[in-house]
Amino acid sequence: MTKNTKVNAAILIIGNEILSGRTQDTNTSTIALWLNLIGVKVNEVRVIPDIEDTIIYTVNHLRKDNDYVFTTGGIGPTHDDITAQSISKAFKLEYEIHKEAFKILEDYYKIGEFNEGRQKMVWMPKNANLILNPTSGAPGFNVGNVFCLPGVPSILKSMLGGLKNKIVGGEPILSHTISLRTVESEIAKSLTNVQECNKNVEIGSYPFFQAGKLGVSIVIRSEDQIKINKCKIEILNFVKEKKIEVVER
Amino acid sequence: MTKNTKVNAAILIIGNEILSGRTQDTNTSTIALWLNLIGVKVNEVRVIPDIEDTIIYTVNHLRKDNDYVFTTGGIGPTHDDITAQSISKAFKLEYEIHKEAFKILEDYYKIGEFNEGRQKMVWMPKNANLILNPTSGAPGFNVGNVFCLPGVPSILKSMLGGLKNKIVGGEPILSHTISLRTVESEIAKSLTNVQECNKNVEIGSYPFFQAGKLGVSIVIRSEDQIKINKCKIEILNFVKEKKIEVVER
Repeated sequence: MTKNTKVNAAILIIGNEILSGRTQDTNTSTIALWLNLIGVKVNEVRVIPDIEDTIIYTVNHLRKDNDYVFTTGGIGPTHDDITAQSISKAFKLEYEIHKEAFKILEDYYKIGEFNEGRQKMVWMPKNANLILNPTSGAPGFNVGNVFCLPGVPSILKSMLGGLKNKIVGGEPILSHTISLRTVESEIAKSLTNVQECNKNVEIGSYPFFQAGKLGVSIVIRSEDQIKINKCKIEILNFVKEKKIEVVER
Repeated sequence: MTKNTKVNAAILIIGNEILSGRTQDTNTSTIALWLNLIGVKVNEVRVIPDIEDTIIYTVNHLRKDNDYVFTTGGIGPTHDDITAQSISKAFKLEYEIHKEAFKILEDYYKIGEFNEGRQKMVWMPKNANLILNPTSGAPGFNVGNVFCLPGVPSILKSMLGGLKNKIVGGEPILSHTISLRTVESEIAKSLTNVQECNKNVEIGSYPFFQAGKLGVSIVIRSEDQIKINKCKIEILNFVKEKKIEVVER
């Protein structure tokens, strides 16, 4: 697989509810935007079912190909939450009670409320590092370069802050967007020329509909602000020549 | 990879804008819900960048492992739209002007508007079957078991209807949802028992927040309505015993 940048990641969404279409995944976008800020580029996302063999196979594949792997889903208390157990097998580690996690949840719940279901959430791969959960107590965990987060978007979001010091990124990936009142076919040739003269910069073109009108957003992405600025000037030059309106979005 | 049902599919989302987090994918859910209705189960989703080698490698892998593959994105007029060209290479087919697609777009656009950018959209793998586009003219295409659709959600949605006769599904995948005013840990053990007694049925448990209160949706999925009903009765039995409120969602 081709890699684009120095530090890269894969996101692995674990959950039948995403594959059935019942639930719309939003965690990919949350994690990817957060990773961009710390200089990690997402190379690949996979969504897979709650099947142990599939989780083991996919995690072992992705962790070899990427600097980091982030999984979401499958770390709750019910029978379909099999991520911790599967990660243990993927790494050939014991699946056991994590003492620190047990202590956290014992303190978090009232006496008598730390029941069997909740106790399942402290079973993890041996010596896993915890990812603290300021929203609902039950921590995620990290083994090697794999970071396991919950599927509930609001809880996942609240846990990313605590991860920052564990991830070593490259240069932050910068971007600049130019939105135009035009259609893609009108600018395709000129934009191709700019891309060909600036091969190390990623230039994307995305049609949009806004207030009943068509438009195109051009997104320029690079670790280097100077390269972005050069592309921006070249794009605005042909935009001016073609008398295309630049719009706010 | 484990397969769950007779007819299965993979969805391949092609686009840097999804990997960067800039755009939230919604096509997975649209395609998966539509496929369920015609008895096709999505086994896997991948999101990959606009890189030719990656597209070729991934398409060739997925089309071997699945009855159908649906790709989204990369069939527009700009330089970053490289799906048609990559699919041609994956299938070792000529990448050439599709005469029928040319005729469609020549008729669709006013005289003089069928410019070079738009003409790029009629380049396809040799002998591809067209997928008609009632929204914006430019067709998608199908080669072997691979169906290539656009990335813009409203356009993609409008094209699925025309695909129905080209996909041979199995039994429709039925589902029933029971929403409860409880938390997962309260029902985890009872739900595990129901799952263990009904191994061929897929039972998922998904926490939700509604009007400031916590709840859990239990989703029962199978091709067999009788099996779903059996699980439903068993679940409602323990719900009643535990005096848990059933809620509407």
